[in-house]
Amino acid sequence: MPPTLYDIHQAAERIRSYAHRTPVLTSESLDQQVGMHVFLKCENFQKVGAFKFRGACNAVFSLSEEEAACGVSTHSSGNHAQALALAAKLRGIPAYIVMPDNAPAVKKAAVAGYGGKITFCEPTLEAREATLAKVVEETSSVVIHPYNDESVIAGQGTATLEFLEDVPDLDIIIAPVGGGGLLSGTAIAAMELKPGIRVIGAEPERADDAYRSMKAGEIVPSANPKTIADGLLTSLGPLTFPIIQSHVEQIITVSETGIIETMKFVWERTKIVIEPSAAVAVAVLWERKIDLSGLKVGVILSGGNVDLEKLPWQR
Amino acid sequence: MPPTLYDIHQAAERIRSYAHRTPVLTSESLDQQVGMHVFLKCENFQKVGAFKFRGACNAVFSLSEEEAACGVSTHSSGNHAQALALAAKLRGIPAYIVMPDNAPAVKKAAVAGYGGKITFCEPTLEAREATLAKVVEETSSVVIHPYNDESVIAGQGTATLEFLEDVPDLDIIIAPVGGGGLLSGTAIAAMELKPGIRVIGAEPERADDAYRSMKAGEIVPSANPKTIADGLLTSLGPLTFPIIQSHVEQIITVSETGIIETMKFVWERTKIVIEPSAAVAVAVLWERKIDLSGLKVGVILSGGNVDLEKLPWQR
Repeated sequence: MPPTLYDIHQAAERIRSYAHRTPVLTSESLDQQVGMHVFLKCENFQKVGAFKFRGACNAVFSLSEEEAACGVSTHSSGNHAQALALAAKLRGIPAYIVMPDNAPAVKKAAVAGYGGKITFCEPTLEAREATLAKVVEETSSVVIHPYNDESVIAGQGTATLEFLEDVPDLDIIIAPVGGGGLLSGTAIAAMELKPGIRVIGAEPERADDAYRSMKAGEIVPSANPKTIADGLLTSLGPLTFPIIQSHVEQIITVSETGIIETMKFVWERTKIVIEPSAAVAVAVLWERKIDLSGLKVGVILSGGNVDLEKLPWQR
Repeated sequence: MPPTLYDIHQAAERIRSYAHRTPVLTSESLDQQVGMHVFLKCENFQKVGAFKFRGACNAVFSLSEEEAACGVSTHSSGNHAQALALAAKLRGIPAYIVMPDNAPAVKKAAVAGYGGKITFCEPTLEAREATLAKVVEETSSVVIHPYNDESVIAGQGTATLEFLEDVPDLDIIIAPVGGGGLLSGTAIAAMELKPGIRVIGAEPERADDAYRSMKAGEIVPSANPKTIADGLLTSLGPLTFPIIQSHVEQIITVSETGIIETMKFVWERTKIVIEPSAAVAVAVLWERKIDLSGLKVGVILSGGNVDLEKLPWQR
């Protein structure tokens, strides 16, 4: 069952004292550049530096005492791992994180820093799933999937509750899509709160499974995609696909060059650090893939976790 | 005559419709790292990306119609040049900017982008001053000095009016010091609004003229200083030095390593882009040069203009 607006309101109550209410920023330079009024929902300022904390936090605090007793687990090398580790720490339960052994040192350190108990494995999906199964068998922990989970989707939707409270007259909301958790939660919240608002998903051309799945009418996963937007490598799941199919107007894809140029422009002009996956949503405007001139366009900046040693525009 | 709190309030009225009221951010990671409550006044979000716009804007809009008629001029390769160009554009008068011909292309482009009329010269102080004198002779423009100017100092002080309105119970304010315009305006506003508040100047060890001037009781300029904090290369002037002497508790110097580490930490954890000169003020806390534990410490982040092609921590 997909979550409803009621579930998203519940999630907002549940995470209120743990998550940040992130600000909405505007930028004259950006507006001039793209010819519309852009409102940036800054989930890069969220705990652990990404919207993922909302979903993980809602999932962890939705568990009964009994369910929570043995802790939670997941396999992830990205923001979900950090988010789950912090949410579990806040509830006082263990988080078991399976990570590929080639994950960047900075990500391993971040998960460990939030108290996550890491098990390393080979960097293949098979190894990750097999290792997670073993961890669950040993710990009896509850697996929290990064996006194919109702309470995670409801948590991600809370960003849009805040967004429409701060800017009620948005004409359209654009969110990036990887596994589809953020886009699903955004679409449910937006369409139920404000029928007629448009919701668009933004995806890298090089990881365009959502675009192709929407065309095909069925899930068409990406096989080993490669994009600078490393948060959007995953493909839609059985829970997120139908929500996106019924609530999202269209998926728009953007080029690698567009992602990098947009990311640099946002850093330079708005003075905020966003990750490539967040730039994907702004790149839809940057590349003028759709005529939105004069409209009030909300963009969810998904996160700001970037390796500062090597930036995408540096060759 | 140094400006008074009254002048600063007047400046605030004058620039209100042009300058941003910048936000104050906090960061749990930073607080934990340094052991105090830190409040960041984000002048990196100001127009042209730096507090300099406040002073330039106040100076330009303080001119009578007659004075303004022939435009304004300055020599600068930094944020003041951009600030003056934009302020003049907003008033509809020309801005003549003398820049060394070796200034970074990005800075030349920025000044030109705001409509500034650039005259290039050799990169020496003598050439800059001689060229400016020639430009003034030709144009009859009014020279707006980057810091040794009452209306500029009053303009810079407006950031502190906002800061103390947003966080009235600050125990201390730290601002970086180069020529001393920001620190002077900050100190006058803070001490007159809230007698007993402490004001501290932050300076790179490698450009420590304010530190040495305070010790000596007279202006001791730096000779050709070299620091990553390129906004703080200038030395105190005859207007700013006495204000700082009478209003500022002390000048604290920080190392180049401290500046770079602090800058990177702020980018990574708070997800905002600050320039090295802004990091200097936070580095006072980072390097624990003074015991402020448990206090409410306000830091003015002076700007966010950075060359993103090459970051200080990249070798």
